[in-house]
Amino acid sequence: MESESEREIVLGKNVHTTCLAVTEPEANDEFTGDKEAYMAGVLARYRKTLVERTKHHLGYPYNLDFDYGALGQLQHFSINNLGDPFIESNYGVHSRQFEVGVLDWFARLWEIEKDEYWGYITNCGTEGNLHGILVGREVFPDGILYASKESHYSVFKAARMYRMECVKVDTLMSGEIDCADFKVKLLAHKDKPAIINVNIGTTVKGAVDDLDLVIQTLEKSGFKHDRFYIHCDGALFGLMMPFVKRAPKVSFKKPIGSVSVSGHKFVGCPMPCGVQITRMEHINALSRNVEYLASRDATIMGSRNGHAPLFLWYTLNRKGYKGFQKEVQKCLRNAHYLKDRLRGVGISAMLNELSSTVVFERPQDEEFVRKWQLACQGNIAHVVVMPSVNIDKLDDFLNELVEHRSTWYEGGKAQAPCIAADIGTENCCCSLHK
Amino acid sequence: MESESEREIVLGKNVHTTCLAVTEPEANDEFTGDKEAYMAGVLARYRKTLVERTKHHLGYPYNLDFDYGALGQLQHFSINNLGDPFIESNYGVHSRQFEVGVLDWFARLWEIEKDEYWGYITNCGTEGNLHGILVGREVFPDGILYASKESHYSVFKAARMYRMECVKVDTLMSGEIDCADFKVKLLAHKDKPAIINVNIGTTVKGAVDDLDLVIQTLEKSGFKHDRFYIHCDGALFGLMMPFVKRAPKVSFKKPIGSVSVSGHKFVGCPMPCGVQITRMEHINALSRNVEYLASRDATIMGSRNGHAPLFLWYTLNRKGYKGFQKEVQKCLRNAHYLKDRLRGVGISAMLNELSSTVVFERPQDEEFVRKWQLACQGNIAHVVVMPSVNIDKLDDFLNELVEHRSTWYEGGKAQAPCIAADIGTENCCCSLHK
Repeated sequence: MESESEREIVLGKNVHTTCLAVTEPEANDEFTGDKEAYMAGVLARYRKTLVERTKHHLGYPYNLDFDYGALGQLQHFSINNLGDPFIESNYGVHSRQFEVGVLDWFARLWEIEKDEYWGYITNCGTEGNLHGILVGREVFPDGILYASKESHYSVFKAARMYRMECVKVDTLMSGEIDCADFKVKLLAHKDKPAIINVNIGTTVKGAVDDLDLVIQTLEKSGFKHDRFYIHCDGALFGLMMPFVKRAPKVSFKKPIGSVSVSGHKFVGCPMPCGVQITRMEHINALSRNVEYLASRDATIMGSRNGHAPLFLWYTLNRKGYKGFQKEVQKCLRNAHYLKDRLRGVGISAMLNELSSTVVFERPQDEEFVRKWQLACQGNIAHVVVMPSVNIDKLDDFLNELVEHRSTWYEGGKAQAPCIAADIGTENCCCSLHK
Repeated sequence: MESESEREIVLGKNVHTTCLAVTEPEANDEFTGDKEAYMAGVLARYRKTLVERTKHHLGYPYNLDFDYGALGQLQHFSINNLGDPFIESNYGVHSRQFEVGVLDWFARLWEIEKDEYWGYITNCGTEGNLHGILVGREVFPDGILYASKESHYSVFKAARMYRMECVKVDTLMSGEIDCADFKVKLLAHKDKPAIINVNIGTTVKGAVDDLDLVIQTLEKSGFKHDRFYIHCDGALFGLMMPFVKRAPKVSFKKPIGSVSVSGHKFVGCPMPCGVQITRMEHINALSRNVEYLASRDATIMGSRNGHAPLFLWYTLNRKGYKGFQKEVQKCLRNAHYLKDRLRGVGISAMLNELSSTVVFERPQDEEFVRKWQLACQGNIAHVVVMPSVNIDKLDDFLNELVEHRSTWYEGGKAQAPCIAADIGTENCCCSLHK
């Protein structure tokens, strides 16, 4: 009963995927147990791969260290928080009581009163961005979307989906939005309201846009508070920043419209999920558009994973603010350790002050990149130091990198490329800049 | 450590939600074990509610009968099928090999070759509709969206999100699209291409739009195949219909653009999910829009639940086409049983020929509606007979309904309302029509 077959799909570039075909059960399967045994075998092999892949993972901002054993008993139920978290549907197998508990926790974190926010637990960071930008567009139907060019691609996807005019803003070397360029672009479009995506941690460099400076720039360019809408994309760092000393604050006391954060990133969760919080007034405005809602549903998805709130509720309760604070500090410490050691052995590397994302020269060997599952872009790669990444793992990685590197650059005879254009001369260790 | 508090959110109508607050752990929690004990208590109580709510569920098209015990071991992993199913990202903890196996199974079901389709496993039926309609719009940027007024609300949500012109088409008493009205509306907009949402089972009445007649109507109205795009919303029934004798076929051999189906409905799954299949040529067209993709990602969500493919793969392998066929037949048989018994005791009821959704007079008592989790609209309610709904459950429900009904209508002195306008005179048992 061999059913692993290779297939080829051409989409942009050839990629082979080893696919596990679904096969029709045979008449006597129940009697022989062959199929059951085959499937158990496939799953056991798969589990082994997952263990190995989890062990060597460094590139994506996912906390892979969690234990939800206590929630295993709930996998038997089809839990669906259909529609609005605050309005029960007739479907009784839901987890709204946990969902709202989690939302309240985030509302407190981002300083908005219980009766002034609306939100829900999403399927991922992208859904948060899609929702935040949609709310912005409904508030300002002719608004222009501004986002730095280092914003997550879901922001530009949203602009296209929603048929919005979108203006890309330049970035500084750090990856932060360049507010001088932002101002120029605002002034060129003064006639239309502004919808701004602010990055609380960019995807590649972990750069945090200066929210206060963004607001100041808007004000100085003549945009009153009723002429702009700010969505904060806090995918990873939205949950870390509150616990970093001296970090600027994401707060609804400032004139922002929405904040989203991923649940599977810093918290850690078996499947992607996220939290989206916006102001009740905006949702009430949406709700008046009966045509749009057709039910009292202001979410993007109709059916919603009811297990995700349980995972988040469980972790937030166990760790609490203090637990997260400890973990954030550990991550920042370990990220500094990694950056210092990279630079110590002469490898170009950058670490933004508020971030745990260490950017460095892209390894020359794709096999090495795949093994450590590094995210790469052009000449750079990054490691995101998460709670599941400890010093031992970083040492293993560093030792292996140094070893391979001496082959790539023939023990110093060949030269590592200059990446000053990506991370700045002060962070570059190429022969010109070191 | 009491943390159940009631809060009230006003959104359309007052609803109280009992929310389980997240509380900060106390310093000595790890020592005393109090928090752990509190949480275990909450979860045990919650589990009991889920058992009870699952037992009494009749109104939503979810198969609540599944056993994924063999997959419990995988809950420790953060499985994420980032982006495209056919293109591996660097994140190694994924389940694409299972996802593509599941997609191939559906491609075979809907008769499209492996190298001619593209698809992915979505978060729910809504995401399928959002994707199908978006693909339609990208193929025909100035196309008009046509959908019967009994289409799922996500279709109209999509029109608004995507800023598309949308024309609502009338329905027949059965809930099917009225192709005479469709023709009138097509002829009134002959200058623009048509994007059509075809319902393979409407939400309320389980009505199946006649795909062949829709295509004929388009052709007769002068729309050539390169002037229309059909998306088939097969949420529930897309997976049942292939196994119903004499049912019209959903097939890519006909000029359709995409089909979506839910995974948590007929298959059964702990969390919502779905399958979306479209033609490769449409996705290739999208992929050329680099701006839109920014990565090779033609999905709506970027991060994707990697557990859902595992659940689907597991069930498809175990049940196979034959297993689904048996279950579909059982559901249709039980649905007929329910309709016949309702009518037998003088309760207005309707059952579409190809459907397992039994529509009947709305019970007068909201408590009763909530207990059995019936979906209601206006004067009608429905029960969707799924594999988890057996004769015993239906008998319990019927006996209770008959008992309550004699109170509502004082043993025959008061009269049950006429619902002929909703389900037709031949199905109505009111004093005028019986």
